[in-house]
Amino acid sequence: MALSDQQKRDIAELQSQKNSTKRVTSEELEKILYDAIPVLDHGFIRVVDYMGDDSSIVQAARVSYGKGTKKISTDSGLIRYLMRHRHSTPFEMCEIKYHVKLPIFVARQWIRHRTANVNEYSARYSILDKEFYIPAKENLAAQSQINRQGRGQVINGEQADEILNMLKDDAERTYKNYEKMLNEKYDGTVIDEGKAGLARELARMNLTLNSYTQWYWKTDLLNLLNFLFLRADDHAQYEIRAYAEVMLDTVKKWVPVAHSAFLDYRVGAAEISAKGLSIIKNLIDGKKVNFEDSQLSKREWNELMSAINQEKLKV
Amino acid sequence: MALSDQQKRDIAELQSQKNSTKRVTSEELEKILYDAIPVLDHGFIRVVDYMGDDSSIVQAARVSYGKGTKKISTDSGLIRYLMRHRHSTPFEMCEIKYHVKLPIFVARQWIRHRTANVNEYSARYSILDKEFYIPAKENLAAQSQINRQGRGQVINGEQADEILNMLKDDAERTYKNYEKMLNEKYDGTVIDEGKAGLARELARMNLTLNSYTQWYWKTDLLNLLNFLFLRADDHAQYEIRAYAEVMLDTVKKWVPVAHSAFLDYRVGAAEISAKGLSIIKNLIDGKKVNFEDSQLSKREWNELMSAINQEKLKV
Amino acid sequence: MALSDQQKRDIAELQSQKNSTKRVTSEELEKILYDAIPVLDHGFIRVVDYMGDDSSIVQAARVSYGKGTKKISTDSGLIRYLMRHRHSTPFEMCEIKYHVKLPIFVARQWIRHRTANVNEYSARYSILDKEFYIPAKENLAAQSQINRQGRGQVINGEQADEILNMLKDDAERTYKNYEKMLNEKYDGTVIDEGKAGLARELARMNLTLNSYTQWYWKTDLLNLLNFLFLRADDHAQYEIRAYAEVMLDTVKKWVPVAHSAFLDYRVGAAEISAKGLSIIKNLIDGKKVNFEDSQLSKREWNELMSAINQEKLKV
Amino acid sequence: MALSDQQKRDIAELQSQKNSTKRVTSEELEKILYDAIPVLDHGFIRVVDYMGDDSSIVQAARVSYGKGTKKISTDSGLIRYLMRHRHSTPFEMCEIKYHVKLPIFVARQWIRHRTANVNEYSARYSILDKEFYIPAKENLAAQSQINRQGRGQVINGEQADEILNMLKDDAERTYKNYEKMLNEKYDGTVIDEGKAGLARELARMNLTLNSYTQWYWKTDLLNLLNFLFLRADDHAQYEIRAYAEVMLDTVKKWVPVAHSAFLDYRVGAAEISAKGLSIIKNLIDGKKVNFEDSQLSKREWNELMSAINQEKLKV
Repeated sequence: MALSDQQKRDIAELQSQKNSTKRVTSEELEKILYDAIPVLDHGFIRVVDYMGDDSSIVQAARVSYGKGTKKISTDSGLIRYLMRHRHSTPFEMCEIKYHVKLPIFVARQWIRHRTANVNEYSARYSILDKEFYIPAKENLAAQSQINRQGRGQVINGEQADEILNMLKDDAERTYKNYEKMLNEKYDGTVIDEGKAGLARELARMNLTLNSYTQWYWKTDLLNLLNFLFLRADDHAQYEIRAYAEVMLDTVKKWVPVAHSAFLDYRVGAAEISAKGLSIIKNLIDGKKVNFEDSQLSKREWNELMSAINQEKLKV
Repeated sequence: MALSDQQKRDIAELQSQKNSTKRVTSEELEKILYDAIPVLDHGFIRVVDYMGDDSSIVQAARVSYGKGTKKISTDSGLIRYLMRHRHSTPFEMCEIKYHVKLPIFVARQWIRHRTANVNEYSARYSILDKEFYIPAKENLAAQSQINRQGRGQVINGEQADEILNMLKDDAERTYKNYEKMLNEKYDGTVIDEGKAGLARELARMNLTLNSYTQWYWKTDLLNLLNFLFLRADDHAQYEIRAYAEVMLDTVKKWVPVAHSAFLDYRVGAAEISAKGLSIIKNLIDGKKVNFEDSQLSKREWNELMSAINQEKLKV
Repeated sequence: MALSDQQKRDIAELQSQKNSTKRVTSEELEKILYDAIPVLDHGFIRVVDYMGDDSSIVQAARVSYGKGTKKISTDSGLIRYLMRHRHSTPFEMCEIKYHVKLPIFVARQWIRHRTANVNEYSARYSILDKEFYIPAKENLAAQSQINRQGRGQVINGEQADEILNMLKDDAERTYKNYEKMLNEKYDGTVIDEGKAGLARELARMNLTLNSYTQWYWKTDLLNLLNFLFLRADDHAQYEIRAYAEVMLDTVKKWVPVAHSAFLDYRVGAAEISAKGLSIIKNLIDGKKVNFEDSQLSKREWNELMSAINQEKLKV
Repeated sequence: MALSDQQKRDIAELQSQKNSTKRVTSEELEKILYDAIPVLDHGFIRVVDYMGDDSSIVQAARVSYGKGTKKISTDSGLIRYLMRHRHSTPFEMCEIKYHVKLPIFVARQWIRHRTANVNEYSARYSILDKEFYIPAKENLAAQSQINRQGRGQVINGEQADEILNMLKDDAERTYKNYEKMLNEKYDGTVIDEGKAGLARELARMNLTLNSYTQWYWKTDLLNLLNFLFLRADDHAQYEIRAYAEVMLDTVKKWVPVAHSAFLDYRVGAAEISAKGLSIIKNLIDGKKVNFEDSQLSKREWNELMSAINQEKLKV
């Protein structure tokens, strides 16, 4: 993440603001507001605005004036109750806006979450930055042999170097040719005054999917938690998980009670099917159960055993 | 609108908050934050939270750090450009939350706007207030003879009194019977200690559609403007328009530049069809045009003439 | 449910259609297409259109030409896998449209499911039918003493008769006054030729919430299952559950494999929290557990024990 | 567009289906159902399912049994009325599903339309086809000098050849390296038996944005028309417009009356601002108007003059 001096000054200026408001504020989140938190090699996450805090969830649930009872224990109990029973609408009453710099292939996964507002940097208008995601060596994993969607062992040695070189060289070359087509360098210098440049909306097609883009992304707390449930999970691709984990920290600062309930009732929870519950019942009753008689697929059986042992299953 | 003393104290307490924030604030909106602005006979609108201001629209459009250029003329030009060309996503970056007290038949129109977050007072849990909307005499209009969805002349005299009496009596009676079924009065007094009360979720079905309900309603600026375009319009039913007009005032305080662009490019604008544009061209060229040769329906013709003369058509 | 002779003829005509199509068809659903299935005292559900079947879920999951493998066992395995892992988008590829007649207080719960398309009968344009929901005696339940949102014991005897009479009388009276205000009877007869009628959009406010309305409601299979998960559940109000149960039957006819997976992995499943899983582990290991040491609330404890015993908890 | 022999057989088999249904069918659309209509150099559009036709719009608007009046002139009048007045919900009652093969940079614009259901080919699971979009020479336009988002003159001669060569070479090379990283060719051949392949979810990041992907995309008619209004417009990037124009043809086959109303009232229409209407009024009244006194920006003035002359403005 290389912020320009101008960007650093702009952030410093935003952070020096001290406005007076009658709105509820989240003290811990205010402390990191506008900060550019690094993610991956050139990316970042910034919280740039928010609305509401834990008390807004309670207020909506009570649809009443004021803050209702002020005993935090009670408010906390209510939030935990709402989370447990999937009473979802009160969590929609909090809103947050992020500024994110991320590789395009990550952006393509992210955008599938439709209930959000997005303004992305447009490569029809402007030239993209000369920045590409190159994985760190420890993240250079082989295709999993057991899960078509996962990663296996880390690739080492010469093969790793070859791969990293290919990624770097191809990104560099396609970017250089992007500039040639545009007849303009990323800093605005015209390359050949005698030539026209290719339309930006066309030239961009030569870039590789690890090029960085950026956007403002705004959503409500309910949809953010749904996003994090999927994307901060072990099954998510490492690169988007890196963003999700940073965002989960910002949720903790923003709405600590909702965050804690989310960990207990969603992240740490398991959904057990009807057949799975029968097997659990038999286990508790001291009966013997085994895969062969379970009517479960091998995969389901493994998932059930993992849930009982509260292990995240590596599939 | 009869706020209880407790409610008044709660509002006063909320308004006495003075939190420090690094977020942008809207000074004019802060002044009326939490205020209960009366609408109809017992309803109100309260702005209870918001996020962003005009500068947030600009910031999203620029997807850049800081505030971009600070010349307001330029920011204003950009917002007007966005509004004119229906570049909608930057307007989604501002969010507002209202607390509204409104008759159920108005709530039923309102809820059709799906892109919003809602927490409504639940008559499954709690007893509804003893408040009904009774129109003022000047709003007691006859069915329009020319528009199946509109109002005609005001009904006066004895017939008006009869109607108002029916509305009042029926609301009173059905509410009294609601209490009887519940075996509980609206203030919590049990009517007959020896009896069970009917489940609230059932008893409520006896109430009339002019009973008041209330909700928190949260949406982004784009969807709010779409709501106001339809509901602050002359063709909207008077009762929902009364709410929309108050909300339009809050938009003016919140995002004055977007508000002004909205009036010019949406509210005051007209969409002219391909055939309509041909007729306008002929008119400008001094050619004669008339309804018979226009290929328009009578209604389309009238709408076109009204647009040209910038009269709101009363249909 | 009183269909007019005209309506019966219209339905018969629709059902006599025999169109040829290259689209996939659901044979069992075709058999009941357009049928008016009775719900409550005057309501109904009709399936009026649909798109896709179980194979469409599979096709989308495979994003491939043709039907992929034709072994149904494999297709069924894929659908069960998708359901178990909440891979939701393939279920969005099927669409269904219902015509529903339902009491307004039920419609108000129903409409909260926002991801659907709706066209409702408009009481601004037209006069509502003279039909009200009056509960059957066995559904006349008292307010639950333990759950603020539930029903307790059935109310019997004289009190039941009183309640039913109030409901009937009030609905009749308010409807009669609705006609008086309109100066028009529900069959179109003008009452007093010398008078104007009150605008329909105003007169409707005098109706009670058990008046019947109707709408076309269209949604995709994913959102339909989410609706049914909540509304066919024991915790849902009986009156909306009556509709959900009929719809669940139509789902069985339409997409039998998805329906069966839904019963196993959603309806019959339980979500067990992190703490709940620990308790289960202890139980299986033969350790003693009790409420006092569980760190659960009483309600959570009860819910956990019910899940283990696969009892639906009556709260 | 190179369909494999297997794909051609699958399509032929789908098209040979002859199912009987009571649903409404669209005869013209049935004729092209499942056809792969070529777009750009390797892309295609296929209509793979649909629900409803023009009569479904009418039916929803009438919320009545049967088809209402059968005089097509009346049905057509109603659809035109709905389109003109932006009564949008009846158009949501028709649904269509496309199978689309398209370059990734086009997919990134397309996906911004959120109200749709999508299942995309996953490059986490599977290897992407070896196909890239290379523009035809006549579409190789320079960056517009007057519009930051547009295209100017076509680039010819040597410079064009250079650009095309860069696009081809870079796509070929990055794809070859993609295969090397995967240690697997696009046809499934393992390259070096002694090596592991890089995880697919990682290797894909080396591909360029003109690589082709494919998806099922399903939406309702209202949202489809909104998509086409923006994407079949002159201001849209040529490459997405190529898809939109083919889709507009499928709309004509599917719902001819709605299609015609769409052309008249949306595509051929112009939205004239309050100030623009004043100027038109003055023009009709024979008064002189000029840019200097108009209070419009230069761009607004040009847009107004273009609208009056029904010319699409090239900006």
